[in-house]
Amino acid sequence: MLNFQYHNPTRYVYGPGEHHRIGALLKPFASKVLLHYGGGSVKRTGLYNAVVASLEAAGIDFIELSGVKPNPSLSLVRKGIDLCRREQVDLVLAVGGGSVIDSAKGIALGVHAPIDVWQYYTDCIDDIRHDVLPVATILTLPAAGSENSPNTVLTDEEHELKLGYGHSKLRPLLSIVNPELFLTLPPNQMANGASDMLCHIFERYFTNTGDTQLSDALSEATMRTIMQQALVLAANPTDLNAWGQLGLSGTIAHNDLLGIGREQSWACHMLEHELSAVYDVPHGAGLAVIVPPYMEATWPHNPGIFYQWATNVMGVTPSRNTEAVIREGIARLRSWYRAIGLPQTMQELGIPADANFTRMAESACQRSGGPGNTLLGIYPFNAREAEAILRAAVAP
Amino acid sequence: MLNFQYHNPTRYVYGPGEHHRIGALLKPFASKVLLHYGGGSVKRTGLYNAVVASLEAAGIDFIELSGVKPNPSLSLVRKGIDLCRREQVDLVLAVGGGSVIDSAKGIALGVHAPIDVWQYYTDCIDDIRHDVLPVATILTLPAAGSENSPNTVLTDEEHELKLGYGHSKLRPLLSIVNPELFLTLPPNQMANGASDMLCHIFERYFTNTGDTQLSDALSEATMRTIMQQALVLAANPTDLNAWGQLGLSGTIAHNDLLGIGREQSWACHMLEHELSAVYDVPHGAGLAVIVPPYMEATWPHNPGIFYQWATNVMGVTPSRNTEAVIREGIARLRSWYRAIGLPQTMQELGIPADANFTRMAESACQRSGGPGNTLLGIYPFNAREAEAILRAAVAP
Repeated sequence: MLNFQYHNPTRYVYGPGEHHRIGALLKPFASKVLLHYGGGSVKRTGLYNAVVASLEAAGIDFIELSGVKPNPSLSLVRKGIDLCRREQVDLVLAVGGGSVIDSAKGIALGVHAPIDVWQYYTDCIDDIRHDVLPVATILTLPAAGSENSPNTVLTDEEHELKLGYGHSKLRPLLSIVNPELFLTLPPNQMANGASDMLCHIFERYFTNTGDTQLSDALSEATMRTIMQQALVLAANPTDLNAWGQLGLSGTIAHNDLLGIGREQSWACHMLEHELSAVYDVPHGAGLAVIVPPYMEATWPHNPGIFYQWATNVMGVTPSRNTEAVIREGIARLRSWYRAIGLPQTMQELGIPADANFTRMAESACQRSGGPGNTLLGIYPFNAREAEAILRAAVAP
Repeated sequence: MLNFQYHNPTRYVYGPGEHHRIGALLKPFASKVLLHYGGGSVKRTGLYNAVVASLEAAGIDFIELSGVKPNPSLSLVRKGIDLCRREQVDLVLAVGGGSVIDSAKGIALGVHAPIDVWQYYTDCIDDIRHDVLPVATILTLPAAGSENSPNTVLTDEEHELKLGYGHSKLRPLLSIVNPELFLTLPPNQMANGASDMLCHIFERYFTNTGDTQLSDALSEATMRTIMQQALVLAANPTDLNAWGQLGLSGTIAHNDLLGIGREQSWACHMLEHELSAVYDVPHGAGLAVIVPPYMEATWPHNPGIFYQWATNVMGVTPSRNTEAVIREGIARLRSWYRAIGLPQTMQELGIPADANFTRMAESACQRSGGPGNTLLGIYPFNAREAEAILRAAVAP
């Protein structure tokens, strides 16, 4: 295991009804809030009215910026920064899923920044010397884990560039997770979310770091819970407890508790970001297509951790035939993706066979941070090998 | 599952060598520190010198208070409070195990308090309106989990009264966990520590709250890890990785991540506090004696959670004979206590058969907080039933 520091000061508030307390909870920290959200769904469900009522009851002034879309855009973030500067906002309240929260983090980062906000993403700037506005969240879609993570992902639509950025100052001050707000989500959003959560654990679990017994066991526990609860929800989309368990799991999957003392990979995320930057596919669906061929290419380079996963998470019976156990584990993962309604090919994802996989693989390798332009992870795949992983999903 | 808030802002620093950074890590938060520790062991191991060198290098002024003993005393805490007031200390640095850290929390709580510090413990005062000094810790014994918990336990020797108190303001600012510092611990301290950790999870896991799939799974993962790593250390007391895994597990066992959204019990801790207040037995050894008879009395009131534990943690093969599975689980737990060298009877603990178990049971029930002077937990045992649990450990 590696030395590590873990610092997660987000105040996490869980349970039915808790969003009605947002005003009282924010009162000690904010006098003027940017209320940031996506489209009409928060208004249709009554959430918007409840939040506004709570802010007003607490005497908190607010302005609004809506219009966040999946794969949130740099242009809206820049607009939010201008707005917050002009209106002297002191906290950004994100009401939505990971896209809205990631957008809110971009805005919070940029308001007092001495340089353009995109430079933090392109140059991975470690040293933030200016104040970052606090971000609070009311989660409406469990998936990205952004409600408790230091991470944000934005897309520069103009240049078809989707980039992640992480800094401890971006952990939200406060997040409210109320599973009642998930009850109206369509099945594909549940499935995309569960896929994303699961992959957040894969990116930490499948590495070469040894001596990680506790975080292995915690990761396996969370993976099993995600897979079980997603199946419950696929059968019954209004199971409040299953939504609650999935919501909590999504937070644990990405607040980096499961990454303590380990190398991390993020290879599948790097590849998927290339897909969704060009084709605007749902992130979780893109991951479902990329993960199995990535595993098939990767397991021979560290069969031990894949065998452990296949037996402890996928329930494959132990056997001396390591390869058969691992292949059965991956086959069961494919079945699980199918069972919750996720695609398994580029075609089903709406990506044509003649897409520019060469360029995508090159770009992913360039950004991933492995030695000499390779994918970071168990094995440093080069661009040619990464392209083969993408092409394996064209007609697997 | 119940609604909950979770807020754990402790900065957790893990790994070999990290204690040399204590000065630099504290510099932003402190100008004058109370260095609080036990006896000679921190001097013999060189830890004391390393800490002093690091504080001096960072230009942090400090005074000292040593002499903390197991079951830390109220009288030393009162002495520390006087000292901090006189010397205008702004942070308490605990170098030691749970006793030293609990003592440091008592001091930190009392320095600016408008009332005597013991009143917070006796009256369970929720509302702290004064400043509490920040506490930093360098852990030398993984057991109590105090390095990341909001809890403290003190003993009023004069009145044979051992009381716990918890408040979010008592979570340490910063904790350093370096498994190298555990390498010189004697085997009985490892065993006592592992027993305490395991019981911290039992007190949260064995309750009547339903719909807790994620925290059940995380709890089971941590229990298995504690039991496995303690056996590794019983065989090889200088296995650095096993110490690291046990140290991390001890933190997770009691930082309340595993208690989110659940009722909690603390019945075994209440009973054990009575034993150690009178007979000064090691806390973990006392728990090892009390837990099995407590389980034997409790399981018929909620066989489901005990069956789940027996199969998922103790590795008992599932069967329709629920009772046999549970009894086998408890038998395996007794074997584990034995395997790491812990007692299973009052006699082995040095407590005579004619001890005043009646008074102890009455006192535990009075303090436990169950309805009508009963033990809080799966079943509200009254004083007569609690006494029977204690007596079952006399000659089981």
